Amino acid sequence: MVFFSTAKILQFEAGLMLLPAFVSIFYAEGWRNLSSFLISIAIILLTTLPFTLNPPKDKRVYAREGLASVALTWIGLSFFGGLPFFISGQIPSMIDAFFETSSGLTTTGSSILDNVEALSHSMLFWRSFTHFIGGMGVLVLALAVFPDTQMGDIQFMKAEVPGPQFGKLMSKLKSTAQALYIIYMVLTLILFLVLVIAGMPVFDSLLHAFGTAGTGGFGIKNGGVAPYNSPLIEVILGIGMLVFGVNFNIYYFILIGKAKDALKSEELKVYLGIVIASIIMIFLNIMHSYSNNLTALRDSFFTVSSIVTTTGFSTADFDAWPLFSKNILLLLMFIGGMAGSTAGGLKVSRVMILFKSAKAELKRMISHNRYVKVTIDKKALDRYTDRSIMNYFLAYVVMFAVLLLLISFWQEDFATAFSSVAATFNNIGPGFNTVGPTLSFSGFNNISKLILSFSMIAGRLELFPILVLFSPRSWKK
Amino acid sequence: MVFFSTAKILQFEAGLMLLPAFVSIFYAEGWRNLSSFLISIAIILLTTLPFTLNPPKDKRVYAREGLASVALTWIGLSFFGGLPFFISGQIPSMIDAFFETSSGLTTTGSSILDNVEALSHSMLFWRSFTHFIGGMGVLVLALAVFPDTQMGDIQFMKAEVPGPQFGKLMSKLKSTAQALYIIYMVLTLILFLVLVIAGMPVFDSLLHAFGTAGTGGFGIKNGGVAPYNSPLIEVILGIGMLVFGVNFNIYYFILIGKAKDALKSEELKVYLGIVIASIIMIFLNIMHSYSNNLTALRDSFFTVSSIVTTTGFSTADFDAWPLFSKNILLLLMFIGGMAGSTAGGLKVSRVMILFKSAKAELKRMISHNRYVKVTIDKKALDRYTDRSIMNYFLAYVVMFAVLLLLISFWQEDFATAFSSVAATFNNIGPGFNTVGPTLSFSGFNNISKLILSFSMIAGRLELFPILVLFSPRSWKK
Repeated sequence: MVFFSTAKILQFEAGLMLLPAFVSIFYAEGWRNLSSFLISIAIILLTTLPFTLNPPKDKRVYAREGLASVALTWIGLSFFGGLPFFISGQIPSMIDAFFETSSGLTTTGSSILDNVEALSHSMLFWRSFTHFIGGMGVLVLALAVFPDTQMGDIQFMKAEVPGPQFGKLMSKLKSTAQALYIIYMVLTLILFLVLVIAGMPVFDSLLHAFGTAGTGGFGIKNGGVAPYNSPLIEVILGIGMLVFGVNFNIYYFILIGKAKDALKSEELKVYLGIVIASIIMIFLNIMHSYSNNLTALRDSFFTVSSIVTTTGFSTADFDAWPLFSKNILLLLMFIGGMAGSTAGGLKVSRVMILFKSAKAELKRMISHNRYVKVTIDKKALDRYTDRSIMNYFLAYVVMFAVLLLLISFWQEDFATAFSSVAATFNNIGPGFNTVGPTLSFSGFNNISKLILSFSMIAGRLELFPILVLFSPRSWKK
Repeated sequence: MVFFSTAKILQFEAGLMLLPAFVSIFYAEGWRNLSSFLISIAIILLTTLPFTLNPPKDKRVYAREGLASVALTWIGLSFFGGLPFFISGQIPSMIDAFFETSSGLTTTGSSILDNVEALSHSMLFWRSFTHFIGGMGVLVLALAVFPDTQMGDIQFMKAEVPGPQFGKLMSKLKSTAQALYIIYMVLTLILFLVLVIAGMPVFDSLLHAFGTAGTGGFGIKNGGVAPYNSPLIEVILGIGMLVFGVNFNIYYFILIGKAKDALKSEELKVYLGIVIASIIMIFLNIMHSYSNNLTALRDSFFTVSSIVTTTGFSTADFDAWPLFSKNILLLLMFIGGMAGSTAGGLKVSRVMILFKSAKAELKRMISHNRYVKVTIDKKALDRYTDRSIMNYFLAYVVMFAVLLLLISFWQEDFATAFSSVAATFNNIGPGFNTVGPTLSFSGFNNISKLILSFSMIAGRLELFPILVLFSPRSWKK
């Protein structure tokens, strides 16, 4: 069952590759580009066909297999999704292609390309399109599209949805997936149109809309968004990123006329509070080095929005900012966007609960074991949620430390090592120093690139699927 | 009551200052040194006398006042304890003297002195003696010495004992304090004698015994322990530090003939396991750059022992080691020694429980809400301990982030900012880059020095006393 569903989703990816193939035809890029996609599609179909010929009779999926299967699927998607880059020769190393594709699918946006403008239109399209696919989740997409019976028990697809879940939107998982995807696509379409109206070329608008929607952050120009030299576009993208960092449930509630309830969300208030406070602190910290206060404010806004939503688009070279501002950005990297959005990081709701939990402990200490409740949206959290979020945080810290140790084996600069793990694990994109916003990850060796690719996938799937996949016990009978 | 007990303890500190005064007479250092101590004693007595003339009738201490009082006492001790340095002119800035004394009392061992050899014998003695006092706790010492009735309800003194407590040694707190102090003094005496036998000068042996016992790490030579150029001394100190990083309960159990039970301690096994694994990894990582493998092994052993016990003595310049080794040391800084030892950091038992907790969560996820117990020494932890340790960890992370942000306001290098907070908050001493083992904290500005002093005290008192002291609610009626 694990291989059957993984194979099905890979075939689905092959289908999606037809889109960049059309782009290649549209721009008349010649045989080399088009054939890269066609050959990749053929390879995927040939590899996966044996697994899908005989649908398994036992469609039950146990938690362990479910989690391992999600992890396996994402690794497979990143590998096969990188084939066109490799076959076309535009990314000559398969490891680089794997890194770039997992960076795309996990909506990280870290790149090994020093000169992104050298890619053809179809490759750029596929690269940014992976952000769009990965943002809401490939499995969720497949779920929304395939008939129910094809996918067996699909509970495990929840592993792909970011953040802790506090309630169900709809009773049926399939209709939830469809509703969320429709909201996602409509918002992306709106952003695309607004960008076109603001004067960005149509192709660029589409790809930036993909990158923003998935909170991915792949640019299509060297220098990111800065070369467009348009304050209007920067403001639109800044707002756009913030919009996609919001829990999609809120949009759903607004759509069904419960706007009042939706806007009362405590997580939303904290999210906006963090954004505004960070913008103010960074603005005050960097304004001295700007000749124009408005530019300083715009750069603060854009960068905060880009980092907290874990998108990673850049206008300013924030690596050149004072350490205070950089450390605020570093904190934002770990906080991330809201649960149920396309953003990465720990998620605002988790951070909120962790904070409240620590505060409650202080109160308990002072008042001797008095039972102090942790509440969110004025409802007390049940013990299980509280505890499982704390444990998530622990697993997160441990995994971060392990990744940092592994990376530091081949890396001598602490800020680079620390921020490259922070940027990939939280699905941001750029870090500091040699992985700063104006630079790429091309300087890492192959093992480091593989480690960072797993860091991205582990971060995107919120650790546990990858932990299960690598746990020795999963491989015992 | 808060001021009464704080004043009592400060007077106790004044009494302890007679020791360095005698050292000053012994070395015939002249009037300037002797008078610095006598004037300091006079200042302390005059300042505190008004508070102790009328013992309060209500001797009850509430948790909030108790915690705030401990924090206040430590700040007072650091301030008044710094007077001799300031009055003698050997540390010309009062803020530097405060930094140096809180570093001593909290057994951190970070120094603002670039040339420590310029200090007189009596000042060196006082400086290292603060390690010895702070190691087991000043309040615990006062408790062991003063008659019960003088100190009122002394439950809050537990705030000074490092690590979570899992059981009581003896039913009476006073006799526990006495037993622990006797073990502490005997071990220190043994170490002192062994050092003398190994050929270290008597004065140096005494001060290094103080520094080791408190896991403090103030050296008395520029260059730390390296100038003695004696492999034997390095090995003795290395073992000595490890001994003082062990939970003192274990020695107590051995003394009363329960050695078998004591050595079964899971925490002890993990502690030694971490030490051995770290030594091996660092040795393999640094051996290429050493001409002699034995020296590489000794440097690995000494440095791991020094860092994991949060002592901070140095033989090798570990800042020049590869980043992998440095990051292992960084992890050790956060882990720290065993609970109930004189070491700082999170403590091995906390880290163990956090790990087990995260592992249990993974098991719960796989097997759908099955209740998986977290055990230590084969006994299941009660829910409250588990949760309060997690919350401690959260408060720890949050406070670390806040300190890092504050320090980065006046500091431009990430590795320096990060490791200076890590080194002070965990009571280690040296960090990396400009606060590396061969350098001092003299380069920081006054505000940063104050912040780092509070970081040391907060780390030593395990956060909550300082949090209560600075919590606005504590100051409302």
